[in-house]
Amino acid sequence: MKATAKAHTNIALIKYWGKRDESLILPMNNSLSLTLDVFYTTTTVTFREELFQDEFLLNEQVIRGEQYNRVAAFLDFIRRETQATSLHAEVRSTNHVPTAAGFASSASGFAALAAATTRALDLSISDQELSRLTRLGSGSACRSIFGGFVEWHKGTEKDGSDSYAVQVQPAEDWDVRVAAVVLSETTKKISSREGMKRTVDTSVFYPGWLKSIPRDLEQIKDGINQRDFEKVGSISEANCLRMHATTLGANPPFTYWHDATLRVMQGVQAMRERGISVFFTIDAGPNVKVLYLPEDETIVQEMLRQIPGVHDVIVSRSGQGVTYL
Amino acid sequence: MKATAKAHTNIALIKYWGKRDESLILPMNNSLSLTLDVFYTTTTVTFREELFQDEFLLNEQVIRGEQYNRVAAFLDFIRRETQATSLHAEVRSTNHVPTAAGFASSASGFAALAAATTRALDLSISDQELSRLTRLGSGSACRSIFGGFVEWHKGTEKDGSDSYAVQVQPAEDWDVRVAAVVLSETTKKISSREGMKRTVDTSVFYPGWLKSIPRDLEQIKDGINQRDFEKVGSISEANCLRMHATTLGANPPFTYWHDATLRVMQGVQAMRERGISVFFTIDAGPNVKVLYLPEDETIVQEMLRQIPGVHDVIVSRSGQGVTYL
Repeated sequence: MKATAKAHTNIALIKYWGKRDESLILPMNNSLSLTLDVFYTTTTVTFREELFQDEFLLNEQVIRGEQYNRVAAFLDFIRRETQATSLHAEVRSTNHVPTAAGFASSASGFAALAAATTRALDLSISDQELSRLTRLGSGSACRSIFGGFVEWHKGTEKDGSDSYAVQVQPAEDWDVRVAAVVLSETTKKISSREGMKRTVDTSVFYPGWLKSIPRDLEQIKDGINQRDFEKVGSISEANCLRMHATTLGANPPFTYWHDATLRVMQGVQAMRERGISVFFTIDAGPNVKVLYLPEDETIVQEMLRQIPGVHDVIVSRSGQGVTYL
Repeated sequence: MKATAKAHTNIALIKYWGKRDESLILPMNNSLSLTLDVFYTTTTVTFREELFQDEFLLNEQVIRGEQYNRVAAFLDFIRRETQATSLHAEVRSTNHVPTAAGFASSASGFAALAAATTRALDLSISDQELSRLTRLGSGSACRSIFGGFVEWHKGTEKDGSDSYAVQVQPAEDWDVRVAAVVLSETTKKISSREGMKRTVDTSVFYPGWLKSIPRDLEQIKDGINQRDFEKVGSISEANCLRMHATTLGANPPFTYWHDATLRVMQGVQAMRERGISVFFTIDAGPNVKVLYLPEDETIVQEMLRQIPGVHDVIVSRSGQGVTYL
């Protein structure tokens, strides 16, 4: 009744942006990510007779409120769906994130939680099934079950039974790097969840966004298969710009960008003009992630650190999927 | 055979963004502007027997090349269309722009040129007809024939005969102010003309842009009629954000924004949070124009000047249409 799992976070190159079902966390479009080596969560789940309710400790701190509720709701869901136990669990998680500044840990967190929980209950399920379960905790977490390049199939079923991630290419096949550029100022007035919803509900550009996805996916998967970094990078960058454009067409309009975000974007474009193959992507927040190849690591790090408003640059390789400790 | 005219520039609140006919300069959508008091061009046109070709002097300098060609082509067009003369003309223009930094003078320039030319030829044409002629020189210049709030009707005829501007409200009816925020760094890699064309041809968001225009126009004209500054300002700001979003969906994507552009945008939003009624709009370049009411002039100017990367702030009232000197 006890198990420990480790899961990495992931960065979307084709963004998950909009839900077709809020409660089942079913996306409007397929997305594609790269699992990152450097950010991970380890979680131990122990089901115990003596507990009257679930307990959640994160980095040795007892968690209550909203964050606790999401974990407990997820455990409830697994108990209900699997009928494997009626016991409550103690959940002990550690986030291994090199900085506290603005990185979402919900992807690695829910992937590790789902893996440890199902292992503790001795359920024999496939990774695909595990990904589907994980999705109910946090949408993008379903991609963190796998390493390397991963695609989340939106599925078409109303109950979400065909909405899960699959691996496109394992981490060891291609050494693509990501520099996470942490800005000094990372305030965010609108949460990802709220921004996504407002965009789907009101943006005049949302139909254009959806229409552009199938071609992006087809091309980026070609690029991954061919190890064509220019192709993978330029499609990722264009896809992120399109995602951020949709927020400018929402009502009321908004943007996640800060002035330093734009400086990093322009710094990346300037490096490209100097012949360095480097591309950016940006999630629903001001920080920027930069894609590059191993031979450019030193120059990319150096140049990013020189940009005013950059607080830290954390480099990462492509990471593995869920493992059990 | 000689006349002098003066015309002001204008700032679009509902943007002209995309042509349906490149050579006749016919727009894809109606646009709406405010004529600005502070930026203007005076032009004297003299038709002379002794000239073998047209001459163009701008600020006392003889102009050749592309800029000359546009003026000569416009004079050719008027000679051909009106059959009023076969003589060549001397054109002497002065741009009264408080700074050289990045302000388009083509709107005031072509409006003054068209007015002086038709007056020199003693053609009796309506302002509407003058606006239509002016459009053939530079699209947005057709709005500068009129003062105050002006709408450019895109028209539906293939020959452009119904594509001209009309006045929505004269300048003296409502004292709305504009602060032109000139940035220190105003480089622009893609011209308005090229950016517009690339967007129409390739942006997945262009249909969404066009779809949003009729409602914007209806609402902003309601706002103007009701002297509802919040309404006029918020629609202007949302329209400009939508225009700039379309460039992020082009192939390849691009943006006219610099980091200082974003700082000014966020500065304006911060002023609003402090209760000052102020809104921004941005043309196809990095500079920002800020709309405000007379009572806020001091505070708006002061706050804009404090933003790093702001080189100058030039305030303007609503201006008159074409006049003859």
